[in-house]
Amino acid sequence: MKHRVVVIGAGFAGLQTVLGLKGADCDITLIDQRNHHLFQPLLYQVATTLLATSDIAWPIRALLRDRRDVTTLLGTVEGVDRGAREVILRTGQRIAYDTLVVATGARHAYFGKDAWEADAPGLKTLEDATTIRRRMLLAFERAELTEDMAERQALLTFAVIGAGPTGVELVGIIAELAHRILPREFRRTDTRKARVLLIEAGPRILPAFSESLSQYAAGALTRRGVQVMTGHPVTECDSTGIVVDGALIPARTTIWAAGVQASRAKDWLGAEADRAGRVIVSDHLTLPDDPAIFVLGDTAHVMSGGKDVPGVAPAAKQQGNHAARTILSRLRGKPAPAPFRYRHMGNLATIGRNAAVIEYGRFRMRGWLAWWVWGIAHIYFLIGARSRLFVSLSWLWVFLSGQNSARLITQKETLKDEKQDK
Amino acid sequence: MKHRVVVIGAGFAGLQTVLGLKGADCDITLIDQRNHHLFQPLLYQVATTLLATSDIAWPIRALLRDRRDVTTLLGTVEGVDRGAREVILRTGQRIAYDTLVVATGARHAYFGKDAWEADAPGLKTLEDATTIRRRMLLAFERAELTEDMAERQALLTFAVIGAGPTGVELVGIIAELAHRILPREFRRTDTRKARVLLIEAGPRILPAFSESLSQYAAGALTRRGVQVMTGHPVTECDSTGIVVDGALIPARTTIWAAGVQASRAKDWLGAEADRAGRVIVSDHLTLPDDPAIFVLGDTAHVMSGGKDVPGVAPAAKQQGNHAARTILSRLRGKPAPAPFRYRHMGNLATIGRNAAVIEYGRFRMRGWLAWWVWGIAHIYFLIGARSRLFVSLSWLWVFLSGQNSARLITQKETLKDEKQDK
Repeated sequence: MKHRVVVIGAGFAGLQTVLGLKGADCDITLIDQRNHHLFQPLLYQVATTLLATSDIAWPIRALLRDRRDVTTLLGTVEGVDRGAREVILRTGQRIAYDTLVVATGARHAYFGKDAWEADAPGLKTLEDATTIRRRMLLAFERAELTEDMAERQALLTFAVIGAGPTGVELVGIIAELAHRILPREFRRTDTRKARVLLIEAGPRILPAFSESLSQYAAGALTRRGVQVMTGHPVTECDSTGIVVDGALIPARTTIWAAGVQASRAKDWLGAEADRAGRVIVSDHLTLPDDPAIFVLGDTAHVMSGGKDVPGVAPAAKQQGNHAARTILSRLRGKPAPAPFRYRHMGNLATIGRNAAVIEYGRFRMRGWLAWWVWGIAHIYFLIGARSRLFVSLSWLWVFLSGQNSARLITQKETLKDEKQDK
Repeated sequence: MKHRVVVIGAGFAGLQTVLGLKGADCDITLIDQRNHHLFQPLLYQVATTLLATSDIAWPIRALLRDRRDVTTLLGTVEGVDRGAREVILRTGQRIAYDTLVVATGARHAYFGKDAWEADAPGLKTLEDATTIRRRMLLAFERAELTEDMAERQALLTFAVIGAGPTGVELVGIIAELAHRILPREFRRTDTRKARVLLIEAGPRILPAFSESLSQYAAGALTRRGVQVMTGHPVTECDSTGIVVDGALIPARTTIWAAGVQASRAKDWLGAEADRAGRVIVSDHLTLPDDPAIFVLGDTAHVMSGGKDVPGVAPAAKQQGNHAARTILSRLRGKPAPAPFRYRHMGNLATIGRNAAVIEYGRFRMRGWLAWWVWGIAHIYFLIGARSRLFVSLSWLWVFLSGQNSARLITQKETLKDEKQDK
């Protein structure tokens, strides 16, 4: 019987593990709650109407069509029976493994304020993105409908909490939408009066970047009409708005981009974890007490060169590669590869149209050239010629026409929301 | 004060009315429950993973961006106060009109079996399409997961009720998906064993077409692995399957394509309607007792040359044009145009890849050439260069690669459904 590898999670880390095991002659089972692999770095563009959902998500089993050694299962894992070496699905089914790879990612975390989630959704899945898109577009629609001026201003206030790359990228496009694209389409409402707030508890935006790029980004956002509020923790958040410095800012659309929490894998494994719930792993990315179980990506607390490895796509892919190489060397009876070492691929973030910041070691770049480099890099990392073609064309179309194309309000909640407005 | 025209519904009829009133120098308000105009003739391709939602839907206010005389409102109409000449929204707001155009379309109808809707959804909106897509894709996923062979066969049974163009077009693609595209992607399940049923109470499929084309279509579907069951009314339908001729056919995915019912406009207007709820209109498409109120499209029972006008897109557009011309002639004090006369643009339907049937008067066409003509005609009728480009490319991609691209399972119901499976 062949060696059985079970991989939980088809994100960057899990998928890369499976790809790295090509030709390993083992039985691989890949389990995910969703039927698609998602290119999370562009998710904010779905949330802000630049791209369609199918541009950045691919059916997992289509990606692995030619890999007869891989069985893909759509299922929700509820636990791991380490004694029996089995993964337990919610349906009660058990999947036996010889080697287990856990790469189940992270969700946004509200630091003990879980009640905020309903009014300040985060951005991790396609559903999150369409929820944010719907709320944002509905806010403009309701502003056009209402005759109450205070309510209109609250509807035209968009608050993004957290100024990492996701927060910065979101406000950049929202400001552009409100101030440049939508004004021609509304008759009663001047969408140029929309307030777009970027609120950050820390002292500066894009803290992972150098101070000069962070300052440049803050200036570029301000010029685009974004109100950048650093050093301002949000102390309250509900459907009426947010409280900053003890004052209520009425806002009907709040988006959470302030922090993440690892998935529940630590509970399944009974493993030691850090405060963010990330499982502590060895320098081969396995549980310290069980080399047959790998934990990768945002689910793991990985150290490299004495530093925390950040929760970004290149890190997850490198970990997937390392896990695959380690498994291969074991199967072939070869010595283990050198311990995992993270190679930093730099920091990138866009700031709306025609501006971005890039940092790679001591190399720094900003402005429109950085924006083009950013775009080309992301097209390169997309999977398959079709996505590259369609995303390039979508971007080119937006660039030339100034019209975001994916501005659809879908999902039935629309009507429910409307009722609540009465 | 300018003449106020209120149009309810931004489907083919309503939108065409607004377009036809360009330069009329009146105040137009266009109200719709959704923010997008939908190209319904291609909706079945969203349901069956060929196209993305944003390929066939456009934000209404973007379409009317340059029309300063048009105010677009996203709102739900709850009634019409004919005495005060006001439209009443669910929010309680009232919109005054001098001329009212009602074009609110139709929903699928279950002929008194409303309980069937939950288990046999119909196809009218983008949400309907993503619901059908999700159920269909989940059925394949669950078939792969289950170890119960009877359950697997039920999951792999897809029943479409009603053999008009929508039903025929749906089964054509579902059969292709199951028999040609998915087999390479599943390891435990042979999706070629999927049963795709087209069930029709009447004596033949595509009853609007000539008998020879209808026979050709039935043969082409059968060759593609569809089981065509004509003369078989469905007498029961629930989550376990359907009953035909007293026998239960276990099926986990059933789609309703058998009939429609007009929207509730007749109640708002207190107007006389036919059995399908369509408002009886004059030969100028207005209420017989009120020339200021037009009723168009699937909401109206329109006669032309002694015959019923069918509920198709060209008919709705022609009615919108007629209403606009009539309003214009009144505003300019000119004589009314000749009564509405429907010009039939022919019948078209695809039968999966490389086959279609077209009928225009005595002209008939079938096979691959008809399929290309059908495709080119539909691209021509799409709105805007972007959609034409993206839909053409999507089709070309599918044609060349044999891979349907929009195979995403989204919406949170995924997880809920899964729980129910336990």
